[in-house]
Amino acid sequence: MADNTSTTALIESLREGASSLYGKDFLLTWDHGVITLKAVLAAAQVLERAYKQGKSARYFDSGLAISIFRDKSTRTRFAYASAASLLGLNLQELDETKTQIAHGETVRETANMISFMARAIGIRDDMFIHEGHRYMVDVANALDEGHKEGVLPFRPALVNLQCDLDHPTQSMADLLHLVATYGGLDKLKGKKLAMSWAYSPSYGKPLSVPQGVITLMTRFGIDVTLAHPEGYDLLPETLEIARRHAHDSGAQFKTTHSMEEAFADADIVYPKSWAPFAIMEERTRLLQSGDAKKLDLLEKECLNNNARFKNWECTDTLMQRTKGASALYMHCLPADISGVSCKAGEVAAAVFERYRIRTYQEAAHKPYVIAAMILLSRCNDVPGFLGRVMK
Amino acid sequence: MADNTSTTALIESLREGASSLYGKDFLLTWDHGVITLKAVLAAAQVLERAYKQGKSARYFDSGLAISIFRDKSTRTRFAYASAASLLGLNLQELDETKTQIAHGETVRETANMISFMARAIGIRDDMFIHEGHRYMVDVANALDEGHKEGVLPFRPALVNLQCDLDHPTQSMADLLHLVATYGGLDKLKGKKLAMSWAYSPSYGKPLSVPQGVITLMTRFGIDVTLAHPEGYDLLPETLEIARRHAHDSGAQFKTTHSMEEAFADADIVYPKSWAPFAIMEERTRLLQSGDAKKLDLLEKECLNNNARFKNWECTDTLMQRTKGASALYMHCLPADISGVSCKAGEVAAAVFERYRIRTYQEAAHKPYVIAAMILLSRCNDVPGFLGRVMK
Amino acid sequence: MADNTSTTALIESLREGASSLYGKDFLLTWDHGVITLKAVLAAAQVLERAYKQGKSARYFDSGLAISIFRDKSTRTRFAYASAASLLGLNLQELDETKTQIAHGETVRETANMISFMARAIGIRDDMFIHEGHRYMVDVANALDEGHKEGVLPFRPALVNLQCDLDHPTQSMADLLHLVATYGGLDKLKGKKLAMSWAYSPSYGKPLSVPQGVITLMTRFGIDVTLAHPEGYDLLPETLEIARRHAHDSGAQFKTTHSMEEAFADADIVYPKSWAPFAIMEERTRLLQSGDAKKLDLLEKECLNNNARFKNWECTDTLMQRTKGASALYMHCLPADISGVSCKAGEVAAAVFERYRIRTYQEAAHKPYVIAAMILLSRCNDVPGFLGRVMK
Repeated sequence: MADNTSTTALIESLREGASSLYGKDFLLTWDHGVITLKAVLAAAQVLERAYKQGKSARYFDSGLAISIFRDKSTRTRFAYASAASLLGLNLQELDETKTQIAHGETVRETANMISFMARAIGIRDDMFIHEGHRYMVDVANALDEGHKEGVLPFRPALVNLQCDLDHPTQSMADLLHLVATYGGLDKLKGKKLAMSWAYSPSYGKPLSVPQGVITLMTRFGIDVTLAHPEGYDLLPETLEIARRHAHDSGAQFKTTHSMEEAFADADIVYPKSWAPFAIMEERTRLLQSGDAKKLDLLEKECLNNNARFKNWECTDTLMQRTKGASALYMHCLPADISGVSCKAGEVAAAVFERYRIRTYQEAAHKPYVIAAMILLSRCNDVPGFLGRVMK
Repeated sequence: MADNTSTTALIESLREGASSLYGKDFLLTWDHGVITLKAVLAAAQVLERAYKQGKSARYFDSGLAISIFRDKSTRTRFAYASAASLLGLNLQELDETKTQIAHGETVRETANMISFMARAIGIRDDMFIHEGHRYMVDVANALDEGHKEGVLPFRPALVNLQCDLDHPTQSMADLLHLVATYGGLDKLKGKKLAMSWAYSPSYGKPLSVPQGVITLMTRFGIDVTLAHPEGYDLLPETLEIARRHAHDSGAQFKTTHSMEEAFADADIVYPKSWAPFAIMEERTRLLQSGDAKKLDLLEKECLNNNARFKNWECTDTLMQRTKGASALYMHCLPADISGVSCKAGEVAAAVFERYRIRTYQEAAHKPYVIAAMILLSRCNDVPGFLGRVMK
Repeated sequence: MADNTSTTALIESLREGASSLYGKDFLLTWDHGVITLKAVLAAAQVLERAYKQGKSARYFDSGLAISIFRDKSTRTRFAYASAASLLGLNLQELDETKTQIAHGETVRETANMISFMARAIGIRDDMFIHEGHRYMVDVANALDEGHKEGVLPFRPALVNLQCDLDHPTQSMADLLHLVATYGGLDKLKGKKLAMSWAYSPSYGKPLSVPQGVITLMTRFGIDVTLAHPEGYDLLPETLEIARRHAHDSGAQFKTTHSMEEAFADADIVYPKSWAPFAIMEERTRLLQSGDAKKLDLLEKECLNNNARFKNWECTDTLMQRTKGASALYMHCLPADISGVSCKAGEVAAAVFERYRIRTYQEAAHKPYVIAAMILLSRCNDVPGFLGRVMK
């Protein structure tokens, strides 16, 4: 699994799980078994090598990779466009302001109307708690029906580019970063990871990144401590999943209200802001009812509340508490960097600068993770295909 | 022509008309002879099979397929993007808000400036009566001049994605749906089609769909009855064309102010709302003069007028009047479905649900119709090309 | 170099300079030696022939060509899209309104985040004096770091699609137009070109076109006269460069405040409006401080000032003063044509109409110039590649 694993060995390693994603979507990492996740990681690594070595990984001759962004995005948008290009697909974005979706069309109909030649659909819908994942399931069901009824000659692969529950392309890229850092998936067992809330002057950041991290990392034997101020809870069901995963892999999963405690002796720290899910629930209700005044008040309340926890910052002092004072700092970017992108934020400038390039490398895996998910979902012989690509 | 016609036979069948579209644009179905329309249908069917069988129909190595949408669109936008991908072209949308077109550029200049590597241009301009088709002809003339003068190495194919007069990619997809439903173009003779106005709570819907349907279906021996309330006339010239086509094919073309009458004994019903052209003319004038207040009044007047005809709804009771109480229901989508997408609309929910999948299948032909038009317009040996694709 | 030079000779002619752009960006023509510019011209000519002869110039198998437009654009946008398609890249536009860039992300980070699979990045940033070029250099430095640190497997080629200093894809296309018109780069020596300000009812037009023209044309022995009303100066450093280039090539470079004087005996005239750089500096300051009221006043002042020079129009009378009364008229388009696109503008309708097609031909070179820049920047054996393309 390691970066210095031979390509042949990587391709061999994905034989076991290669067919387990075939014909399925990638919506939540916990929908899939560990062998499936390993296959995604291995396929992503091979695709990354193919691109770097100038070898063509065009699996498709033509067809569309559709993206639906219901929230702003730069990096995921470009990562998805890159994955589409790698596999030979033409990107087509569904911009809901340019379309007739607002005119009362049902999800079911639109999902079919845009998909006659779609081979992949990536969706980001992370603004509304309890809604994003549900929307993706609705789309998946509509695609199933359309394919069964002969409307869609091919069932497109559906990939979650961030929902209210999970951000699997991010957490899997994060995991690949750990594989590259420590030299293999088998080297991660027993490592300590602190997934910690951090202060940000902005509001309404999605919960899917911390939820994705605690549910994924616990599967691979990583001891995870989740830290946040009181009231900044994640969705309870994701805590349940993380506990179960930790139990199954023999890892520990703990929660605390102290950043210091989480950082103590940690190998890896992931300090990142998010909104409390109770606030996100209220916000979803207000957005749906269109109550602008109450939304304003909620934002103020939320920012004031955040401000009580300005000391939740990843500083050099805190980093000193980590294993050998040299834990790996991770972030999904963009980070709120104190004195750089904001007055006071998630991370001290000196800490961030030390790890800046490594956060770029962390993000660099995402296009290949997305491409691997699409490929494993649609190609029934990925080891054979990748073997031909790399020969 | 039927769906079970062999591919070899389909390719053979288009030899007669294959060269008749070469070097020409596809702006109005009545610009072209029946053999040309048959060639488009046959080529679309072969391209559809090629895609489903994973055979590459990339005719172009590089170059742009440009789209110009002067009205919102989801399905036609994605159908055009799909056709571009199928033929190997890169889609580039001309978004008039992002460009300098509003800055007094002439159509003539812009048409050339965007087309240096264009192989196809699709235009949707259906908002302004008496304007959309004229604009497309202006673009066509500019492209002719640019090609003649050596500015454009290749003359791009111009395809009408909906104008004020016709919606040929829709009506040809509708016709393919009938071919698939009844087992062949030759099986359509004598079928009865009711093209009927239906109530909608929205305003200003284009006339091009009903105009496209009555002018096209009458060419293939289908008896067409056009039904609408008084005042909801289509453009008189399209009625003239429909009458001539019916005469030439030995079919009947009738008009009535009764939905019941049109539905009586019909094999096919196409209930769909549109604005009366007199209203569209007034709207065009007001939009051009920018008189927002009068536009508001016109909309209210129009909606009030529509509301007098709420009983023009495709209900189960009406469907009982059709041939064997089982006429084929057609719609270009999205339909205004009573109780689903609006309180009261064009079609009862139960009727629509029964035919829902079939309306998706109807729409699914559009990408291939567009690709066939582009291919026949630019490739001088389509039978040879398709033979190589399918071998 | 001429249009009737054989393709083999063109490919041979670029051997000398082919490697000089390899691994470098194309930001300013004066960053590069004459042999590099000649290589770009020759490669562009060969690519143009390849496309016209239907020969594939797809150098890349997959990957993105990214564009960042910080100002409206039609023709450059489509030229860049065309170049991307020609070389086999997928276009992905960074629309700053759709992204998180406005949220305080640093240029450094974003440049890396979008570039994991980028092979080319084209940037237009011409609104802010002293800013556009600086921004591009920041992006270039970020890409260098990212590539060095292993974040970016390939360093994308950076191409200036117009900045505050230069508009190299325009001026190089202009130069190719002169090559085509006079039959070779060696035929341009001693030709007289009048780069003249002209009246426009609009405001804030960039200075990069005249700056690009005077700095480039003087390198090839063309005698350039720059004419403008008092106060409409270009950036002093670009005048310095033009003077030096003229000295080195044995050409003349003169400035005058009289359009008549510039046009006298000219072989080529390029009448085009621009804003005085002092106004652009003030505008940049006001835009940065967000002072809408003062911006309004500045616009009024600027338009009033322009209006004093309505007689700076390229009329038939002025054209009579040129060499044989038949100088070549050039424009980057769109031109402000008196009585056509505005009441009074840069050029009389009769003059423009006579040269209209030739201005289209001038613009038609741009996609190939952009493709040549990308290719020479990223391919280490362009003569070999183009030889294979054209064989």
